[in-house]
Amino acid sequence: MNPLAAGVAAGNRRALSKALTLIESNRVQDNAAALDLLRVLTAHNNSEPTTQVDSFSIGLSGPPGAGKSTLIETLGCLMVEQGHQVAVLAVDPSSQMSGGAILGDKTRMPRLSALPQAYVRPTPSRGTLGGVARSTLESMSVCVAAGYNRVLVETVGVGQSEISVANLVDCMTLVLPPVGGDELQSIKRGITEVADIVVVNKADGVTKDAALRAAKGFAATMPLRPPRRRHWRPTVLAISSRTGAGMAALQDTFENFRASLSASGELDKVRGAQRVAVSWSAAEELALTSLRHDVKSKIVFDHLIERVRKGEMAPREAASEVVAAFKRQEERRNF
Amino acid sequence: MNPLAAGVAAGNRRALSKALTLIESNRVQDNAAALDLLRVLTAHNNSEPTTQVDSFSIGLSGPPGAGKSTLIETLGCLMVEQGHQVAVLAVDPSSQMSGGAILGDKTRMPRLSALPQAYVRPTPSRGTLGGVARSTLESMSVCVAAGYNRVLVETVGVGQSEISVANLVDCMTLVLPPVGGDELQSIKRGITEVADIVVVNKADGVTKDAALRAAKGFAATMPLRPPRRRHWRPTVLAISSRTGAGMAALQDTFENFRASLSASGELDKVRGAQRVAVSWSAAEELALTSLRHDVKSKIVFDHLIERVRKGEMAPREAASEVVAAFKRQEERRNF
Repeated sequence: MNPLAAGVAAGNRRALSKALTLIESNRVQDNAAALDLLRVLTAHNNSEPTTQVDSFSIGLSGPPGAGKSTLIETLGCLMVEQGHQVAVLAVDPSSQMSGGAILGDKTRMPRLSALPQAYVRPTPSRGTLGGVARSTLESMSVCVAAGYNRVLVETVGVGQSEISVANLVDCMTLVLPPVGGDELQSIKRGITEVADIVVVNKADGVTKDAALRAAKGFAATMPLRPPRRRHWRPTVLAISSRTGAGMAALQDTFENFRASLSASGELDKVRGAQRVAVSWSAAEELALTSLRHDVKSKIVFDHLIERVRKGEMAPREAASEVVAAFKRQEERRNF
Repeated sequence: MNPLAAGVAAGNRRALSKALTLIESNRVQDNAAALDLLRVLTAHNNSEPTTQVDSFSIGLSGPPGAGKSTLIETLGCLMVEQGHQVAVLAVDPSSQMSGGAILGDKTRMPRLSALPQAYVRPTPSRGTLGGVARSTLESMSVCVAAGYNRVLVETVGVGQSEISVANLVDCMTLVLPPVGGDELQSIKRGITEVADIVVVNKADGVTKDAALRAAKGFAATMPLRPPRRRHWRPTVLAISSRTGAGMAALQDTFENFRASLSASGELDKVRGAQRVAVSWSAAEELALTSLRHDVKSKIVFDHLIERVRKGEMAPREAASEVVAAFKRQEERRNF
């Protein structure tokens, strides 16, 4: 067996970290090793069918200041108390944004990180939306192979990233601060469409009333929206990750969600569709990566570049010749 | 000569409209005809070197409500008065957004459209950022071939589209409503980085003072930013497209910009770099399009899909086999 895969399957933390780094790598020369690792771990997960059936992934997304990290840490500790093995991954699909600066190099979630039953990935994986989708799905299955039956995926970044992560996890959770008025309206219209569970945080102290009001406001609009799942009606909870109020109810809601979708067979269907979609976007990503690294195409491009620069050749024509050279590549190699 | 290209070169409006529709088409079967058209028109533009030297393209972008369309119509009419031939194109790179609804099917810019020296493209071209960049650059050169020496490119949509259009035109103009305070600050930090000229519109009636103040605010921050061009310092103007105040000064500013960048040779360099960048992104777009239409890859994907769906094969592995089949394609055809 592949020694790195063996380390992961044995629950070795260093092996897990190394495996995740390999998965996230964009370097062409790491691809073969990543493929081999995934082949072995996919077979491993399938040899113990309960592993995948029992596993459950939760996406957590929300604007900065909503208290996501504190919530995840509190939730993770609660899950460990209930006997689960918890892994926390973070995703930052906005490569231009300074995701590293947001999370810093400090130890994330110190209480959770200290537990032997938990693994917190210190840095968010970054890259293009397509690349991150593939590597997030792979990282989740590596965590499952390492024995973590609850995987929490935190989304760092803004905009489309929530939508992308919602298509990778079993259950998508939107974490919001107590907001009202116009801001509430615009959030309602947008991101809530992808949420299975909406959590209004900070239902404590001076913000308690505002949080309860916001939760009520979201709950009132929920029946108006087409449901995202056949066997789940989106649920709204007001909680406080600081005082712990509502945290047990939230964890119960997650388990109810899992039980409901699992019993009905919907969970298998959703996961299958997600894997298929990610495979195709991974193929597109791979085609682009191999075009970018294709020596023959580069030679053709460099050869045409002066005529393009001077306006003597249309960009589309140069593009056609570059892609034709790319597709001829394999043929040449085979002779 | 290609009859469509001949029609365009003769200044026939119907031929121009047909040519632009062909350029914007995403259908694979239109690609060969578009390539041929571009080949002929590129040669045509190069056979009359003054055509390209005299031509000048201006991008106009800004938030909804800034009065872009009225400004473009007034500016276009002024340019025609000064003896120019004016074409107006619109770009909407946000395919999900309802660009059509924003512009509607009504005749755009009725005063300008009625002039024989002007051509207003009724619908914005839409698609992915990469695809729109390529087709916009091509459409601009088709308009130049049709005798339009001033091409105004209006950006519909939000966010990244301004940045993309800024990399396609000779001169990028940001059109803003009179704004103040926080809103002014965030605009300053963001989009102004790509602007050669900032226009604060609505310097008339009750909004006149606010417009002048906003223009002053922008002008004050300009020297702090690294200049986008070697031979141009970003300029701020307060104008009113309704009363016409400042419109002549704006048109003078455009002509000064063109003269300064043209005399220094910077215009040629900028255009060359733009063409090269668009060629590469067009190659990436074409590689993806041909992957999506590749029968062999589709067969391989369909063959693996069940194993992927069941979690027996990693998405990356399926992706590798799909791309390998895609690249083997040409070889097969040649036997």
